[in-house]
Amino acid sequence: MLKQSQVDQLQARTAEMLARQGILLTPEEHRAIEIADFGLGEIERTGLELITYINTDRYCAKELVLLPHQICPEHKHPPIGSIPGKMETFRCRWGRVWLYIEGEPTATIQAHIPTGSEDYYTVFHEIELHPGEQYTIPPDTLHWFQAGEEGAIVSEFSSTSRDEYDIFTDPRIRRQPEVAEA
Amino acid sequence: MLKQSQVDQLQARTAEMLARQGILLTPEEHRAIEIADFGLGEIERTGLELITYINTDRYCAKELVLLPHQICPEHKHPPIGSIPGKMETFRCRWGRVWLYIEGEPTATIQAHIPTGSEDYYTVFHEIELHPGEQYTIPPDTLHWFQAGEEGAIVSEFSSTSRDEYDIFTDPRIRRQPEVAEA
Ligand SMILES: [Zn+2]
Ligand SMILES: [Zn+2]
Repeated sequence: MLKQSQVDQLQARTAEMLARQGILLTPEEHRAIEIADFGLGEIERTGLELITYINTDRYCAKELVLLPHQICPEHKHPPIGSIPGKMETFRCRWGRVWLYIEGEPTATIQAHIPTGSEDYYTVFHEIELHPGEQYTIPPDTLHWFQAGEEGAIVSEFSSTSRDEYDIFTDPRIRRQPEVAEA
Repeated sequence: MLKQSQVDQLQARTAEMLARQGILLTPEEHRAIEIADFGLGEIERTGLELITYINTDRYCAKELVLLPHQICPEHKHPPIGSIPGKMETFRCRWGRVWLYIEGEPTATIQAHIPTGSEDYYTVFHEIELHPGEQYTIPPDTLHWFQAGEEGAIVSEFSSTSRDEYDIFTDPRIRRQPEVAEA
């Protein structure tokens, strides 16, 4: 479980990485930066920092921040009733990202999967994104991604976000962060 | 009508303004930068430069660039059949923008309406946006906006974009750009 002091520290670090690239937040947004450790307790390896700019019943936009080599674990966005799963466009703003999706596996992938979690990464079609490059992930498609050695900033444009429905390959994962009292 | 040489020049100027803020485009995107003069033949006063990152049947994301004091003329996004009109979130990334929407008119607005076009601006509820600030415009709501003295960069997150249905207050306006051969 994350401690409140860790959350505060990572929020500050995230805001600083964004500000260095000229991406500014309001004080309310700063306080709302989400620190996702996915319940694994190893946030520097497996985790994601994100700010949701807008999430309506029609569209969603977020800024995703990855620490150096940080990995967002494999998941997909299933349909919810008659609504197709979330569709996501990832646009790399800064740093470098390796994105993996279903499809022909890449012979030698560049990402490093955290030791002990190898079983929970099953798709290996690699897409490398540099600043100014983007990729759109179809609904209901497994994907995961990792930043390069400097970390990364990725703009996410998507249909409505309903994180609670996400399906992770790793059964240990809890998407909703739990934070201990300070 | 815009000349091809003007389009080339404004595309280069737009890409340079974006690059100065660390916003990079692919060569294909550079060539696809849209230079909208709205058919009025006064692009430095009334116009908009934009790049569409993604436009699907579910969501859309664009980067809007405004030259110093450039104005995007008053318009709204009506419903199309049973689909509500386009809903837009404007997030100021750089520079300063004054946005005007329906509602209580602001006593003294900061924007300057181009001489001769006064009749075609009818809503005056002012929202000033600085970098890191955003505003969401409901569907089917009249709005227009103008950059401050340095110009502006605005990220637009929205539902699907169907520009051909936009309704402009100024009947002289043609949304689809016409470009003369070089
Ligand atoms: Zn996803
Ligand atoms: Zn609009």
